[in-house]
Amino acid sequence: MRLRELGEFGLIERIRKATPSGPGVRLGIGDDAAWVECKKASLLVTSDLLLEGVHFSLKWTTFRGLGYKTLAVNLSDLAAMGGSPAYLILSLGIPVDFKAEDVEQFYRGMRALASRSGVALIGGDTSASKRFFISATLVGYAPYGAIARSGGRIGDDLYVTGTLGDSALGLQLLKRRKHGAGRHGFAYLLSRHHFPTARLTAGALLARKKLAKAMIDVSDGLLQDLGHICTASGVGAVVYQDALPLSPAYRSWAGRKGPLYALTGGEDYELLFCVRRRDRQRLERIKNKLAVRVTRIGECRPLEEGIRVINAAGEPVAIPVAGHDHFKGKH
Amino acid sequence: MRLRELGEFGLIERIRKATPSGPGVRLGIGDDAAWVECKKASLLVTSDLLLEGVHFSLKWTTFRGLGYKTLAVNLSDLAAMGGSPAYLILSLGIPVDFKAEDVEQFYRGMRALASRSGVALIGGDTSASKRFFISATLVGYAPYGAIARSGGRIGDDLYVTGTLGDSALGLQLLKRRKHGAGRHGFAYLLSRHHFPTARLTAGALLARKKLAKAMIDVSDGLLQDLGHICTASGVGAVVYQDALPLSPAYRSWAGRKGPLYALTGGEDYELLFCVRRRDRQRLERIKNKLAVRVTRIGECRPLEEGIRVINAAGEPVAIPVAGHDHFKGKH
Repeated sequence: MRLRELGEFGLIERIRKATPSGPGVRLGIGDDAAWVECKKASLLVTSDLLLEGVHFSLKWTTFRGLGYKTLAVNLSDLAAMGGSPAYLILSLGIPVDFKAEDVEQFYRGMRALASRSGVALIGGDTSASKRFFISATLVGYAPYGAIARSGGRIGDDLYVTGTLGDSALGLQLLKRRKHGAGRHGFAYLLSRHHFPTARLTAGALLARKKLAKAMIDVSDGLLQDLGHICTASGVGAVVYQDALPLSPAYRSWAGRKGPLYALTGGEDYELLFCVRRRDRQRLERIKNKLAVRVTRIGECRPLEEGIRVINAAGEPVAIPVAGHDHFKGKH
Repeated sequence: MRLRELGEFGLIERIRKATPSGPGVRLGIGDDAAWVECKKASLLVTSDLLLEGVHFSLKWTTFRGLGYKTLAVNLSDLAAMGGSPAYLILSLGIPVDFKAEDVEQFYRGMRALASRSGVALIGGDTSASKRFFISATLVGYAPYGAIARSGGRIGDDLYVTGTLGDSALGLQLLKRRKHGAGRHGFAYLLSRHHFPTARLTAGALLARKKLAKAMIDVSDGLLQDLGHICTASGVGAVVYQDALPLSPAYRSWAGRKGPLYALTGGEDYELLFCVRRRDRQRLERIKNKLAVRVTRIGECRPLEEGIRVINAAGEPVAIPVAGHDHFKGKH
């Protein structure tokens, strides 16, 4: 059934019926506002816009995958504050010729991740729109205090979780319509693009142990997000190119691009964080509790040194900067 | 300066600088998430999408007015739950050829109402978009418990705040490009459309005194929103046409349409609520503390009677139903 036939109230009713009331929800979808319990004195709120043609393409993304990813990128923002998630508000602008089944697949993908993450969908809004877009707001808690971007100091170690560049490389393979189902690592790169993992356990433990002094999730590319930490903290940074954590699949597929996607590709949703050098041993001791590997990839330097990438010989490496600005396009 | 030149980060920086940190805000715009204090155990969250060409037209709306109204309609949703507002999250999809000054006017209009209402803007997202749209999420408190739509019972009195139909009539005048600056009430109707007043004082007092048992704000038109209360409460209703509160300006301009806009026009943002008949005197006694007049316009009836409008003689009046469904259009 097309949304044109089902109508707005029909769609909301379908969503409401398919959405179980989560923990802490006194009144969910369907009233003027949701009414929920607030269990901690310290709240986190994050919000993301995702637009068809800007942030995603339905050419190579399923509705189910998109629902998953919508929640995942917001979970990642809370992870980067050291927080834990609780309530999701989801608003959709939907073309009237979309099938209701497609929209339901979107919610199915979102709910699959929500129930695993202890997140309740409590409300939102829908409207007809020329192009599909998603506006998601996630509310959570900061039980150990929030980790801002601004706490980096000169001399801090820079760490990153997981591996870098897989998602951007996966997207390149999709865009070039490369087919490599048989070749090692292909499916892995695509799944890293479609189904990123928010590092909630790592973020919360790093906050609880007061190890991460500044933290961000890598969504716009390592160098650009490192730039955000440096600007907020008033420091520069050096990145050790040879230390960048690259997956076997990345090494197999990156070819002549080498570490480029790892440095400038977006949507890794790994955590980048600053640790005081004196805490290096303390971090080593809790590494196996973070549910993901962490790698030391650089250090904070004086502001005037800017951000540099160096090779094993300590020589600076020239990097074509390719972060993303949604108003300017690639720059 | 066009947004194309200013860029996303330039715009966010401008917004951040112009946004004062509000009460309870530990970390506002510019990090992965906002970090705020939660002062009550009971939270309300509401969200609205506003799309150019669907919910508003830049032909007859200023950016400043739009910023004001974006917050006002969300305040109205919290008022309808008996709540009080605290934190606003605002995401915008903006065409790249918009002027940065226009976007700043939007924020200015929003902030003017925010500071009067004790609301802090704490975050959001921005993206380039073909058409302008706004996604706003408002977080607040329900200190007296939230008033759902579902608490109406057979025999309850139906009340409404303020006057009905002014906004829809004002919009008609705008659409027909009527010019009547000199004629009584013209400016009033337009201002009711552009600058609606959320009935926060009334909503909170009705909740605190436990007088409103079911409540909604009239955004889609009286009959449609009454329908939502009736569906949720499992009752029918009768509306006394002659009791509908109409402003002098409305009476002067409505002409042959009579009470039609008051019954079916949208965007009044008045409160419609159910009061047990035994509480009629108790409501009378606190009327002057509600900061707006309230009028008894009908009563809840058995479900099988549906929703009827009757005239002074008690005869049913035929009303062309014209509520709005954003996927189906007017129906």
